[in-house]
Amino acid sequence: MHALILGAAGMIGRRLADALATQGDARSLTLVDVVEPTAPAGFTGPVVTAAADLSVPGAAEAALIGRPDVIFHLAAIVSGEAEADLEKGYRVNLDATRLLLDAIRNAHAAEGYRPRVVFTSSLAVFGPPLPGVIPDDMILTPATSYGTQKAMGELLLADYSRRGFLDGIGLRLPTICVRPGKPNKAASGFFSGIIREPLAGQEAVLPVPDTVRHWFASPRSATEYLLHAARIDLGALGLRRSLTMPGLSATVADEIEALRRVAGDAAVALIRRAPDPAIQAIVETWPEAFDTRRALDLGFKADASFDALVELHIAETQG
Amino acid sequence: MHALILGAAGMIGRRLADALATQGDARSLTLVDVVEPTAPAGFTGPVVTAAADLSVPGAAEAALIGRPDVIFHLAAIVSGEAEADLEKGYRVNLDATRLLLDAIRNAHAAEGYRPRVVFTSSLAVFGPPLPGVIPDDMILTPATSYGTQKAMGELLLADYSRRGFLDGIGLRLPTICVRPGKPNKAASGFFSGIIREPLAGQEAVLPVPDTVRHWFASPRSATEYLLHAARIDLGALGLRRSLTMPGLSATVADEIEALRRVAGDAAVALIRRAPDPAIQAIVETWPEAFDTRRALDLGFKADASFDALVELHIAETQG
Repeated sequence: MHALILGAAGMIGRRLADALATQGDARSLTLVDVVEPTAPAGFTGPVVTAAADLSVPGAAEAALIGRPDVIFHLAAIVSGEAEADLEKGYRVNLDATRLLLDAIRNAHAAEGYRPRVVFTSSLAVFGPPLPGVIPDDMILTPATSYGTQKAMGELLLADYSRRGFLDGIGLRLPTICVRPGKPNKAASGFFSGIIREPLAGQEAVLPVPDTVRHWFASPRSATEYLLHAARIDLGALGLRRSLTMPGLSATVADEIEALRRVAGDAAVALIRRAPDPAIQAIVETWPEAFDTRRALDLGFKADASFDALVELHIAETQG
Repeated sequence: MHALILGAAGMIGRRLADALATQGDARSLTLVDVVEPTAPAGFTGPVVTAAADLSVPGAAEAALIGRPDVIFHLAAIVSGEAEADLEKGYRVNLDATRLLLDAIRNAHAAEGYRPRVVFTSSLAVFGPPLPGVIPDDMILTPATSYGTQKAMGELLLADYSRRGFLDGIGLRLPTICVRPGKPNKAASGFFSGIIREPLAGQEAVLPVPDTVRHWFASPRSATEYLLHAARIDLGALGLRRSLTMPGLSATVADEIEALRRVAGDAAVALIRRAPDPAIQAIVETWPEAFDTRRALDLGFKADASFDALVELHIAETQG
């Protein structure tokens, strides 16, 4: 297949390009992002890389010029930025998605083009009040503009799929853990930080109580979800084209005990508790666990344990 | 208050303007539609009427020039037209709503303007599979582009309310019955037709079985819902700014028996059964009944009985 990745320079986009190249899914690749992505090492098929702002009219048409069989739409600005800059958030996260789907619709009308579209949505489509375990048919009540934009994208994807312009699926990815790289200022940063920094011999700050519970997947699982979504038959989805992906429901205490089992007390001693009421207030509105039976029935598989997430991070950073 | 009605030339818009004028809610009125609306008879306050296409940039700014305290946004194209003409549907039902909310946002940023916005949503935000009684926290899975556009409008209204640009509420109105006027080609037309035509001494066609159940409100109740939504405190809504309005859950058989009690066997004899599999297939996907406790708690009140709907229609058409 010819695969197009929009948002190919991001952490998941790069892994996805590598996986498509090495697992034999892709015959050719088109990689697009706001900064020009790099082609995956060792891939011998044709690769096009391009820097483009998909919220500019015409950019989606250019990205679709090779009529990719599968389009991975990962391009977005993150929650904090979408909240700080409302116009940019709606432009990048909603308008660019609509321009993409409309470019596909026009190609469908002209020549019957009907690609698979794999859209990364977010747990941020859910907002309080939330039950402890969130069912697959939970109403979407986003508590952020980012979540609103993702929920609107889900609706558009479902409508365009229903009308036959494309064959779409939206994946609400769990929080990625352990996220590689440097600490960042995301409110969720500590979930990865309290594992990643101690494993690198550095102090990590924990701003919330040990009892905080959240929903996690490894970077590898997130990549596998995207690949799986490109391969499976979507006939069973009906009108509900977006799914919460399987994950691990774990507390901060569960994280710390996994770190202790894998890396010992010395690593755990590098976690410094520094309660931050502002971060605590944000995190309290986040979901804790999901009933993902629809995704499980379709063959999406969660990580085995939080220990496995820690071990995977060690293997990837030290391999 | 100064009230603005967008969609003021429609059946509900005209009733709403009359009610605002006669019940003393409005000090002044701005009435906008694609065709110029008529001012309500007997109203002595200032009235501005204007024909405008709200999907054209600048039209919303012009409509807001008097900084109305309450904005009733009823303007939309109907389900059948939005399905037949995708671009027009998204332009009128989504883009015009966004242009309106963005015009309010800009006035908020410039001068702290923060009006009440009453948005008419639709039961079409719900799609199959549906339970017999639909709870308030049912996920939105529209089965039409119209329902998709309304669901996207609900999300935008909620986000802009959360951010404090406006104080919004979305009302999912029940199917209006008895809808006055001539028969039309809407798939739902028969629900009113089998009452309205026999009361006028004319034959009515019934394309579905007597067992079909649906959710109804009188034109008077729909108008009262809009007025009530403009008056009440919305602090209790939280993130969930859109509500299903109370209604009567009735079968076609219930309708027929109400007609018989009010107008006798001769009226019922004018109903001609002519099963139409196409209409039946559409109607089968529609909701049957709702648990509307959130709206009831806020003081929205359903009609008393289907007999009352029939009697109201007689009173209004013969008064």
